[in-house]
Amino acid sequence: MRSAIVGMNRRALLASLTLLPMPAVLRTASALAQDAASPLASWNDGPAKRSIVDFVHTTTDPSSAKFVAPAERVATFDQDGTLWVEHPIYTQVVYCLDRVPAAVAMKPGLKNVEPFKTVLAGDREAIAKLSLKDLEEILAATLSGMSVEEFEAETRKWIETAKHPRWKRLYTDLTYQPMLEVLQYLRANGYKTYIVTGGGQDFVRVYSEKIYGIPPEQVVGTAGGTKYGYDKNGRPFLTKEPKLLLNDNNAGKPEGIHLEIGRRPLAAFGNSTGDRQMLEYTGAGDGARLMMLVLHDDAQREYAYGPAQGLPGTKVGAFTQALYDEARKDGWTVISMKRDWKRIFAFD
Amino acid sequence: MRSAIVGMNRRALLASLTLLPMPAVLRTASALAQDAASPLASWNDGPAKRSIVDFVHTTTDPSSAKFVAPAERVATFDQDGTLWVEHPIYTQVVYCLDRVPAAVAMKPGLKNVEPFKTVLAGDREAIAKLSLKDLEEILAATLSGMSVEEFEAETRKWIETAKHPRWKRLYTDLTYQPMLEVLQYLRANGYKTYIVTGGGQDFVRVYSEKIYGIPPEQVVGTAGGTKYGYDKNGRPFLTKEPKLLLNDNNAGKPEGIHLEIGRRPLAAFGNSTGDRQMLEYTGAGDGARLMMLVLHDDAQREYAYGPAQGLPGTKVGAFTQALYDEARKDGWTVISMKRDWKRIFAFD
Repeated sequence: MRSAIVGMNRRALLASLTLLPMPAVLRTASALAQDAASPLASWNDGPAKRSIVDFVHTTTDPSSAKFVAPAERVATFDQDGTLWVEHPIYTQVVYCLDRVPAAVAMKPGLKNVEPFKTVLAGDREAIAKLSLKDLEEILAATLSGMSVEEFEAETRKWIETAKHPRWKRLYTDLTYQPMLEVLQYLRANGYKTYIVTGGGQDFVRVYSEKIYGIPPEQVVGTAGGTKYGYDKNGRPFLTKEPKLLLNDNNAGKPEGIHLEIGRRPLAAFGNSTGDRQMLEYTGAGDGARLMMLVLHDDAQREYAYGPAQGLPGTKVGAFTQALYDEARKDGWTVISMKRDWKRIFAFD
Repeated sequence: MRSAIVGMNRRALLASLTLLPMPAVLRTASALAQDAASPLASWNDGPAKRSIVDFVHTTTDPSSAKFVAPAERVATFDQDGTLWVEHPIYTQVVYCLDRVPAAVAMKPGLKNVEPFKTVLAGDREAIAKLSLKDLEEILAATLSGMSVEEFEAETRKWIETAKHPRWKRLYTDLTYQPMLEVLQYLRANGYKTYIVTGGGQDFVRVYSEKIYGIPPEQVVGTAGGTKYGYDKNGRPFLTKEPKLLLNDNNAGKPEGIHLEIGRRPLAAFGNSTGDRQMLEYTGAGDGARLMMLVLHDDAQREYAYGPAQGLPGTKVGAFTQALYDEARKDGWTVISMKRDWKRIFAFD
């Protein structure tokens, strides 16, 4: 589980747990109805939208020289910062912190042991200062040791109630409407859409079908081992183990894609250096390719962060200058949330 | 890669590399045309065929109390001995032995080192006496160290030319026609069919779509790690590593299903103790379930082996008495190749 927190700036990540709410932009019913007719209704016209539409036409028009058979149409999407809000802290880390009391109840010995003591005390400033090793320990304790079914039930309960501090809405409401439209548009054109996330595979699978229309078998993520065993009635079950099988960040993304999909994607979407290798690997294939990076440059409607925004102190995912340069060199398209998206969320 | 040979009786496995050919049973064109109308045309009427048809009706009829939504219809199939011939030796082991000269050419230092020396000498009796450790070394040397694309190209070349010693036919011709019909029948009823094999995931993916209609992303198998890197032109590629990620045998089958599918199967098909946990895990779910085991009891048309056949000396996959007992106790259906299958191969 260590990977879920690799590359995070903990200080920044944990520093601000409450943010001011912003008023939702009210839209008229007729404007929404008009949008619904277009497959990418929440996108402004521009190079980003055009690159998506062109790519789909080029790969699905049977008369195109770059036509791709439906079976080979694979598109992969990072989750945090690409499909939903990752600021000020990854949703799954919030989940793990919230799970600490339950984990301690199972193993009371942890109660007076750091870092659990600090988390239980609820001192946000102290929590923000936890070391990477501390956070790894918390993730291991809260994401393993129970059956797969128990984990799923607990996660489901949490994700259906926990709310983001800024919008006071469910985390699952904070998916980016324009990206949901890309997922739908690709699927409507025969693409299989996959999530390829540094987050926990089992965590994301709990809600991916409902929120993204992506079934569990199309979620690749950081994954721990499981262990087969029997309960006292002889009924078999799988226990989640702390052993890390796949760190689905950086080079782990193409490795995870090979392991669980076995096909090179034709299109890949990300937002940080953790997605770099996935985009490189996608771009290294023959024929038409689409590589896109979401740039968080909209401080008003969402957030503006990352060194490419001149705001290194607030980074969560890191959209570095080097990533910007590679994108330009390799023909990847940068999506400006501010310029390219008419609205960010479905409730806007 | 060790898992591909776990549980094999090496002596038996490697002892007989040639067997007498048997004449194909000639069938009239009209009989074949008649069969084509029925979804399980190569099955004799009886409890095995009936259990498949009943299961499909029960889970797909919207008025059934045990109806299952299409998204949840998952069926898993072992490969060796369940979908194609595994006797006298797993096809992938033949491939690895055939690959030894090429592996040695890449690393000439291996030429005079055992077990490579023995394999290169071509002495079948000596090869049959190789230890488990020797075979693991051969598998590691022949299944790793090249790029994913090189491995795929080599495997494809081999599988399109190598022939089984008894039938003098491509290995891919030696799939069981009745099982191909089960795959098609399930898919026609909204099931997603998966291979869950102790064999190498990358190996089986090369031909699974063409032979079984199962795309690479629906093949779960024994899997090694890969390593992301760049060639001298800066183009990224994945190298196959000798590190074992998933031993997809025994308890590894439900663990692999959880890792790569994330849903419990409704139906599972196997033929040996290596499939036991997959069938148990499948059977432990709620609602209608189908667990089936192929019994190799047809010495004339295929083979008869396994302790349940009173022939421990010729076992490859082990259909033990204990497995038989568990099948009876848990309501798993045993498929008698002799009694239940009208024909074994498409060319019969």
